[in-house]
Amino acid sequence: MTTEATTVRPADSPSTLEPPLVDYRTEPGRYKHWRLAVDGCVATLTMDVDEQGGLAPGYELKLNSYDLGVDIELYDAVQRLRFEHPEVRAVVVTSGKDRIFCAGANIRMLASATHSWKVNFCKFTNETRNGIEDATRNSGQVYIAALNGTASGGGYELALSCEHIMLVDDRSSVVSLPELPLLGVLPGTGGLTRVVDKRHVRRDLADYFATKAEGIGGKKAVQWRLVDEVAPRALWQEAVSDRAREMAADSGRLAGGPGVPLTPLAKDRRDNAISYRYVRATLDRERAVAEITVLGPEQDAPASLAEAHALGDEFWPLAMTRELDDLILDLRTNETTIGTWVLRTRGSADRVLAYDALLLPAAGGDWLANEVVLYLKRTLKRLDVTSRSLIALVEPGSCFAGSLLELALAADRSYMLAGVFEDEDPDAPPATVTVGGMNLRPLPMSNGLTRLRTRFLGDEKALQDVVEQLGRPLEAQDAEELGLITFALDDIDWADEVRIALEERASFSPDGLTGLEANYRFAGPETIETKIFGRLSAWQNWIFYRPNASGADGALRAYGTGRRASFDRKRV
Amino acid sequence: MTTEATTVRPADSPSTLEPPLVDYRTEPGRYKHWRLAVDGCVATLTMDVDEQGGLAPGYELKLNSYDLGVDIELYDAVQRLRFEHPEVRAVVVTSGKDRIFCAGANIRMLASATHSWKVNFCKFTNETRNGIEDATRNSGQVYIAALNGTASGGGYELALSCEHIMLVDDRSSVVSLPELPLLGVLPGTGGLTRVVDKRHVRRDLADYFATKAEGIGGKKAVQWRLVDEVAPRALWQEAVSDRAREMAADSGRLAGGPGVPLTPLAKDRRDNAISYRYVRATLDRERAVAEITVLGPEQDAPASLAEAHALGDEFWPLAMTRELDDLILDLRTNETTIGTWVLRTRGSADRVLAYDALLLPAAGGDWLANEVVLYLKRTLKRLDVTSRSLIALVEPGSCFAGSLLELALAADRSYMLAGVFEDEDPDAPPATVTVGGMNLRPLPMSNGLTRLRTRFLGDEKALQDVVEQLGRPLEAQDAEELGLITFALDDIDWADEVRIALEERASFSPDGLTGLEANYRFAGPETIETKIFGRLSAWQNWIFYRPNASGADGALRAYGTGRRASFDRKRV
Repeated sequence: MTTEATTVRPADSPSTLEPPLVDYRTEPGRYKHWRLAVDGCVATLTMDVDEQGGLAPGYELKLNSYDLGVDIELYDAVQRLRFEHPEVRAVVVTSGKDRIFCAGANIRMLASATHSWKVNFCKFTNETRNGIEDATRNSGQVYIAALNGTASGGGYELALSCEHIMLVDDRSSVVSLPELPLLGVLPGTGGLTRVVDKRHVRRDLADYFATKAEGIGGKKAVQWRLVDEVAPRALWQEAVSDRAREMAADSGRLAGGPGVPLTPLAKDRRDNAISYRYVRATLDRERAVAEITVLGPEQDAPASLAEAHALGDEFWPLAMTRELDDLILDLRTNETTIGTWVLRTRGSADRVLAYDALLLPAAGGDWLANEVVLYLKRTLKRLDVTSRSLIALVEPGSCFAGSLLELALAADRSYMLAGVFEDEDPDAPPATVTVGGMNLRPLPMSNGLTRLRTRFLGDEKALQDVVEQLGRPLEAQDAEELGLITFALDDIDWADEVRIALEERASFSPDGLTGLEANYRFAGPETIETKIFGRLSAWQNWIFYRPNASGADGALRAYGTGRRASFDRKRV
Repeated sequence: MTTEATTVRPADSPSTLEPPLVDYRTEPGRYKHWRLAVDGCVATLTMDVDEQGGLAPGYELKLNSYDLGVDIELYDAVQRLRFEHPEVRAVVVTSGKDRIFCAGANIRMLASATHSWKVNFCKFTNETRNGIEDATRNSGQVYIAALNGTASGGGYELALSCEHIMLVDDRSSVVSLPELPLLGVLPGTGGLTRVVDKRHVRRDLADYFATKAEGIGGKKAVQWRLVDEVAPRALWQEAVSDRAREMAADSGRLAGGPGVPLTPLAKDRRDNAISYRYVRATLDRERAVAEITVLGPEQDAPASLAEAHALGDEFWPLAMTRELDDLILDLRTNETTIGTWVLRTRGSADRVLAYDALLLPAAGGDWLANEVVLYLKRTLKRLDVTSRSLIALVEPGSCFAGSLLELALAADRSYMLAGVFEDEDPDAPPATVTVGGMNLRPLPMSNGLTRLRTRFLGDEKALQDVVEQLGRPLEAQDAEELGLITFALDDIDWADEVRIALEERASFSPDGLTGLEANYRFAGPETIETKIFGRLSAWQNWIFYRPNASGADGALRAYGTGRRASFDRKRV
């Protein structure tokens, strides 16, 4: 396992205090900022940020403020709780500091970061918050925010992602969203959306709340629905632990057995290639293309779920998903100029479908099967909100079937070879795609619909035609007619057409592509998640980029300097 | 009627070729760019843009490209068709140029405009497109785009707002969205959203389409659902007129009677005040506040609908709505540094409710009543998407009842006086608000819900409590308890609290406020309209502001110069 630190340093806007190469792999023994304790069915995640432990030099993480490094640990903890602790049914998130829960994202870090860094940081933070909600809703690990001190900005937004919010009632602890009055930006990690859409705070009260930097505590915070309950400091520990036990008892967590340890992820990262066991990427910075290949299972599917449990994180769907997850995060953070990701698969479609067939019926009853499917769902969602063009190439030897077909369905466009490469392997079986049960229900996008249903939005007939082909390998002509792929190309045209498509993509405005993809990928209904990634993040990105926030006299840069921000007063 | 042209010239980003003071009032006799012809139940709107007739110097409106001035005429025509032509049941939108329908927004105008101008221009254009859909859906005036030549960019987006799109099949005419490949920006006037969400073009095909500057015509355009039908040039006129007659016959337009002429709107615009008969505004640029007062009816409601018809555009709800509509457009365009609008009403709540009572039962059966209510709905929606803070003040003598209560419900916050101003008029009846039938159904927001339902999202009980008070004047204490207003204040606190709220608002980042309000105002479900104003516009605003589009080497500025745009290749 090598980790060669290529220096990838964003260079747009202001200065930069960013680390060279970010590694998302960690484990509790290496946490600097969180403590994870498990006591029977209740886990406690204690935030105790190391002020000097920032991911980059130049800022101190005071008052439990966070940077990407803090959030990477939180993400890891949430994942491990799901896989390593089937017994845990409630998770208390609290602070190890006195009188402060969390002050939100570190301002000095934000003020000095490049635009792309800020946006990527917020995206990951949002995904982690969404993952907390997913754990509560679909894994029976119910998150409780135990605010033993003030939760402001991103700190309150972290609480908002929990199912239940408790606030200590001590006349000084409050919840607040001071971003607008203090920093001129939005509470952009879901804050605005969750306040009105999840907690149903009346929007005029929400407006007042988001302009009142000093926050709201005590009974008013309950009346306005900003928190669920308050408890005096003297009764705090007892109140939290009672509530945690109560919510654990009500949780629908599937019954246990031993957990599955998430062992260190083997990864070989070189300047132009990243490889894991089942996922490989080659990076072509000149063409601005990453060629990603996901390998199907090396072995036949286990004969039983018990065998799958015994395999632990060697179980192909879990191993592959972990690798894909890490790769997405790596490329998003460290390779911002690689604008197009080409997605390929290689292996046996039958084996992929056999693994799917093992998981599918079990996902409702076996905790591990459930977790694996949910993890794949979240990872595919991460792909959906990735600001890179996704082009799937379906070639002979590929295994775009069932769960792996989702990669092609997530792509902005797909090209499929009709037949075989005559020069390479004229006797190979032609490329096929196969629709499986995994494409029909368990892997919804953020809009709540499957990728197939989103694809055929408003065309029930087309969807039915596809469903009728369930389990049948479809060659290019059929796949194109059914609308499962974008273009079927024959051997003669393949190389040129694909090359032109990739070159063309690289010639377009990266910003324009980001906007295009963010709009097209989410047809159909909107949910809290799509609102966060669409409406809220898009506005925040705009605000982040405006001089009123990030300019030399902008509010983000002025904060803490004693200077007042100077605003262009024009309303846009 | 005076129109003193104060020079209001946006000054952020690049250069500016903007007109001094924009007047939205026009009439067919003054159109430079459109011809409106009515032939029985079919109207034809012919776009024939005067190249030299731009709103500002510095660009030529070639190939039926448009600027704000062109769209102001279109808006006027759509409005007049609704009110002046009850007999019209289908509207054909076509071009007076040979082989070109419309080339979209003028690039040179966009490239030279300030950021705030671009954003405001797009917003109005979007509202006009939404109004076309509203006319089709709710007024029985079905719009048909008869593309007698190529429709590109905004030209195709105009077509997308029509119910039925016909394209001439001549081997050269196409539809296209070339914004991304040519300009590095989005088809931001609803294009991306309508392609996938309204017309259900498969998103991978939509992706290809939006990257192919040369567009798609003929049968493929039909197969991909980009248009509804094609017809050869030889049969074109006949095909269009057959289709128009057929769709007119199927339309649900309520039966006629004579139309209501929209007479020139009397408006007195001075440097610090704008007044109409029922709507007044004073502009305080120092405090960045516009104080807007809407006056209730001067007379009792007509005894019958026949009388209302006879009053024509003197009928209070119509007169007031026209004035409010014009004021919103004027302030949005010409007074960009006035960030807060204070909303007051004055008059008799009983009279407002009496007018509502006349309109409400009639809106489903009487064409004029229907049009008046729809117009009020659209105007209130315009308020919802206005990037200004809206603060309602409910004082003694006000008439926030029924339709006018919507102004307070549209506001970000409302303050209500408990009792009276002791020094001013101790014997006045105290301020009240009254919920009426208009608040319960006919005036939905863009999210498809009423303002009341959005306000009490997820709290059916609170909504029911309010509905039980229907028709009852509610004083401050009750209104606050019911959640109809934000804060009830007594005389002693009033002046200070209101002053502080307005000063505080003016101290915040205008960008941050725009983002905050755009997120909070649209809790609940999303629709094509909210997606356009939220997701699509927010991304477009970001893209517009980025150097990749608007910088000296950006794609918008490079277009037509022979230079290639130079992009920062980082994906954000």
